[in-house]
Amino acid sequence: MGIPNLQIALDHSDLPSAVADIAKVGEIVDILEVGTILCLQAGEEAIRCVRALFPNKKVVADTKCADAGGTVAKNCADAGADWMTVICCATIPTMKAAAKEVEEVQVELYGDWTYEQAQQWLDAGISQAIYHQSRDALFAGETWGEKDLNRVKKLIEMGFRVSVTGGLDVDTLKLFAGVDVYTFITGRGITAAEDPVVAAQAFKAEIQRIWG
Amino acid sequence: MGIPNLQIALDHSDLPSAVADIAKVGEIVDILEVGTILCLQAGEEAIRCVRALFPNKKVVADTKCADAGGTVAKNCADAGADWMTVICCATIPTMKAAAKEVEEVQVELYGDWTYEQAQQWLDAGISQAIYHQSRDALFAGETWGEKDLNRVKKLIEMGFRVSVTGGLDVDTLKLFAGVDVYTFITGRGITAAEDPVVAAQAFKAEIQRIWG
Repeated sequence: MGIPNLQIALDHSDLPSAVADIAKVGEIVDILEVGTILCLQAGEEAIRCVRALFPNKKVVADTKCADAGGTVAKNCADAGADWMTVICCATIPTMKAAAKEVEEVQVELYGDWTYEQAQQWLDAGISQAIYHQSRDALFAGETWGEKDLNRVKKLIEMGFRVSVTGGLDVDTLKLFAGVDVYTFITGRGITAAEDPVVAAQAFKAEIQRIWG
Repeated sequence: MGIPNLQIALDHSDLPSAVADIAKVGEIVDILEVGTILCLQAGEEAIRCVRALFPNKKVVADTKCADAGGTVAKNCADAGADWMTVICCATIPTMKAAAKEVEEVQVELYGDWTYEQAQQWLDAGISQAIYHQSRDALFAGETWGEKDLNRVKKLIEMGFRVSVTGGLDVDTLKLFAGVDVYTFITGRGITAAEDPVVAAQAFKAEIQRIWG
């Protein structure tokens, strides 16, 4: 079992505050995500800024791409992204078109996806999935539970490298002890902390304690 | 039966060429769409430019929002969009959160959605749907057929105002004769034409001929 990565999601609505936050903690975390909100607000400039700030880190554009996979992926790669996300209800041709242009594609799991579809993604050569507790579902009172953990485990058994995200904090990580999670993604768990550097270090230390 | 609207989708990868195209044909068409590719490349500036150019036209941000519906919708509205799109696999809380911030939300239909889900969208107060032939599916050789038309009709019977899009040209419109389509959406059907103004006028004239 590997040691899970820590990924920071920049879900800011403006580029200056995103740049200020990532400059503080980018070296501590493993993967830098230009979140969907930021992509839609600042466009490719957001990817370019994060890439310029951290030339050697893995950069993900969380486009949640549903169509025109080739064009979106080429644009993301041109701006400096290594990986990008596609939404689970995108068609296989969209996913394949995206996968040709970026190093790796990650499937974002929302709504009523099936393991049959998941197998099709694997068959199409896409082996990263992001298991999500929707922000809006969290606002509606839903939390991480046994059902979520079993789905994550099943996806890992199928052969996916699985990232988990949605309402994670340092205390939540131990729920996943014994599970071969590929990456933990958090946004405001770090950026909204009183001291983002301390928060990022606390995430890393807890991951090391449990999986190290 | 109403006369369908004509919507132009700006799916440019850069803002200057999008602005140049929309300036030519914006007055002819009914609805101006800032396409997903352009949203991801130019950010909110794209919405702001289209709004500034055409203060009195309906502007749609094609975000295909999958999460954080409230934030994405508020950002779109702040930039000047009247409507925005959500992806069909978004959760109902995401759709409802978006619907609070913009005038109307449109559900983009991709992949394996069901009529049961569609009824849930209606029950949540969302009555616009976009029936899509995926660009990547079109590239893979799929075309409009009886199956698509029956789905469009069924959605209209359920109570949706239905926009159709994907590989439409002036000759394709007559396939929909007798169907109460709310809006035809085309991008390069106008922008890639030798004369975009003539192309936009030809779309309008054909719609008038069939539904007028």
